[in-house]
Amino acid sequence: MNLPSKVKLVDVGPRDGLQNEKSPVPAAVKIELVHRLQSAGLSEIEVTSFVSPKWVPQMADNAEVMAGIKRKTGVRYSVLTPNMQGLEAALLSKPDEIVVFAAASEAFSQRNINCSIAESIQRFALVVQAARDKGIYVRGAMSCTVGCPYEGEIAPERVAMLASMMKDIGVQHVGIADTIGVGTPIKVQRAIEATLKHYAIDDVSGHFHDTYGQALGNTLAALQLGVWQFDTSVAGLGGCPFAKGATGNVASEDVVYMLHGLGIETGIDLEKLVDAGQFISDFLGRKPNSRAATALLNKRAF
Amino acid sequence: MNLPSKVKLVDVGPRDGLQNEKSPVPAAVKIELVHRLQSAGLSEIEVTSFVSPKWVPQMADNAEVMAGIKRKTGVRYSVLTPNMQGLEAALLSKPDEIVVFAAASEAFSQRNINCSIAESIQRFALVVQAARDKGIYVRGAMSCTVGCPYEGEIAPERVAMLASMMKDIGVQHVGIADTIGVGTPIKVQRAIEATLKHYAIDDVSGHFHDTYGQALGNTLAALQLGVWQFDTSVAGLGGCPFAKGATGNVASEDVVYMLHGLGIETGIDLEKLVDAGQFISDFLGRKPNSRAATALLNKRAF
Repeated sequence: MNLPSKVKLVDVGPRDGLQNEKSPVPAAVKIELVHRLQSAGLSEIEVTSFVSPKWVPQMADNAEVMAGIKRKTGVRYSVLTPNMQGLEAALLSKPDEIVVFAAASEAFSQRNINCSIAESIQRFALVVQAARDKGIYVRGAMSCTVGCPYEGEIAPERVAMLASMMKDIGVQHVGIADTIGVGTPIKVQRAIEATLKHYAIDDVSGHFHDTYGQALGNTLAALQLGVWQFDTSVAGLGGCPFAKGATGNVASEDVVYMLHGLGIETGIDLEKLVDAGQFISDFLGRKPNSRAATALLNKRAF
Repeated sequence: MNLPSKVKLVDVGPRDGLQNEKSPVPAAVKIELVHRLQSAGLSEIEVTSFVSPKWVPQMADNAEVMAGIKRKTGVRYSVLTPNMQGLEAALLSKPDEIVVFAAASEAFSQRNINCSIAESIQRFALVVQAARDKGIYVRGAMSCTVGCPYEGEIAPERVAMLASMMKDIGVQHVGIADTIGVGTPIKVQRAIEATLKHYAIDDVSGHFHDTYGQALGNTLAALQLGVWQFDTSVAGLGGCPFAKGATGNVASEDVVYMLHGLGIETGIDLEKLVDAGQFISDFLGRKPNSRAATALLNKRAF
């Protein structure tokens, strides 16, 4: 099996995970989570989003969280910015990277952000340009690259088209997201191959959801194509808004367990990562949504 | 990705799953579960074990369950037989197949069945011979082929040695089990390759546990070596006695979801399989331990 020797994980728990919590999590808890993640060896963390607090009250403390982090050398801190206003606010917090987003599904784009894919790209063009003018690295999150809750399966050609539009506006790296977790290994490989028509292998990452339990198989399939960057979420933070009670983001712990078992370096201390997951899960009053974390915590208690 | 076009699943839920329940499940419920599984398209079901009711009270109703099943043409019904007494009792129930077992780990063999691997094989030799004399197909379950709770990692050479001993006593098919779920794709492939020194690809199956969330990645890795037979358990029935509260057998629903997504035929109707899992989970008073089942049930309710 031909696999990369090193993998970089971006933990999106503090942002993508915690924005799905009904009750906003206090800034101090988010800051402590980020500290624990960087102490566990994560080299990039998606911290927060600079979006209207009317839409996403969970992230209203974005500037406070960014200001409270004791930054660690070598770690990158990224934030989501949906528009120019968000970018301007974000820049004051000095992120290393901003994240813009668009869907590969027209229906999803309309329902999620109330405009067409082309319109969303047009809007983001200004944001991307402004960020790059300031020397900020820009990552693009491509949602629904395998399936859409409204349209069903998404053809790889649509993913290639979205990747091409992202490239045209200056996005430097794209994340290939299976937003509703319906992907299986070959379908995920097709979405990746479509993206690779426009981006080099070093400029793409996989973002898989475990809604149907498929995320690790999909991660393995991506690794086999040479993908070496993945978004994951500590303790599996983040639900799936399209299937109540179902799992969303794949748990960082499960991915790290597989990678280490494959002999792939991540720079992450799995036991410390499990501790970070237990910290935030304890705060949320539930168990970590990670099978590896569950097994390791049981083993400690045994 | 080079994968088999068809896969056969053996649902081990009624035996391997339900023997882990504290309170024995009534025979009528087990029979109904078997009926639902065969109606969902399963072509083999591990029904029960003929073991002393003192050791495993959960399976004390073995003969009653076997007698109560309305057998469906084309479906195979297998039972576990730990010794000659078990085989003799089992034969009265006319199974299509019996299952014997041995560990690739010496410490596990000693603690689990109180004898060495060689002694366990010697004891089973008589059982295998007697079964084959009656024209009954014999499957061998090889436990701890990747890791052992007492010894840690198990070298592939030990798996090859066990497979060779199984072959010598006339076992026709071997299941390669990751009993504690610690395997990751390359380690699992090594255990399979070790087994293939003594058995043809058509005579091996994978039996993976999802304790650390690795079962689907391991299944994909096995498929890539040409393995096309797997043990799975509806609703993820069966815990892990070595990690309380942790997941054991991989859920049939999760595996079927992946296989169908890969375009692989199974003959199984996933929605009916989800119904079967919900039936037994309702009886046990809990939710199915399957992410695909959870997502599909949520989708129905949405």
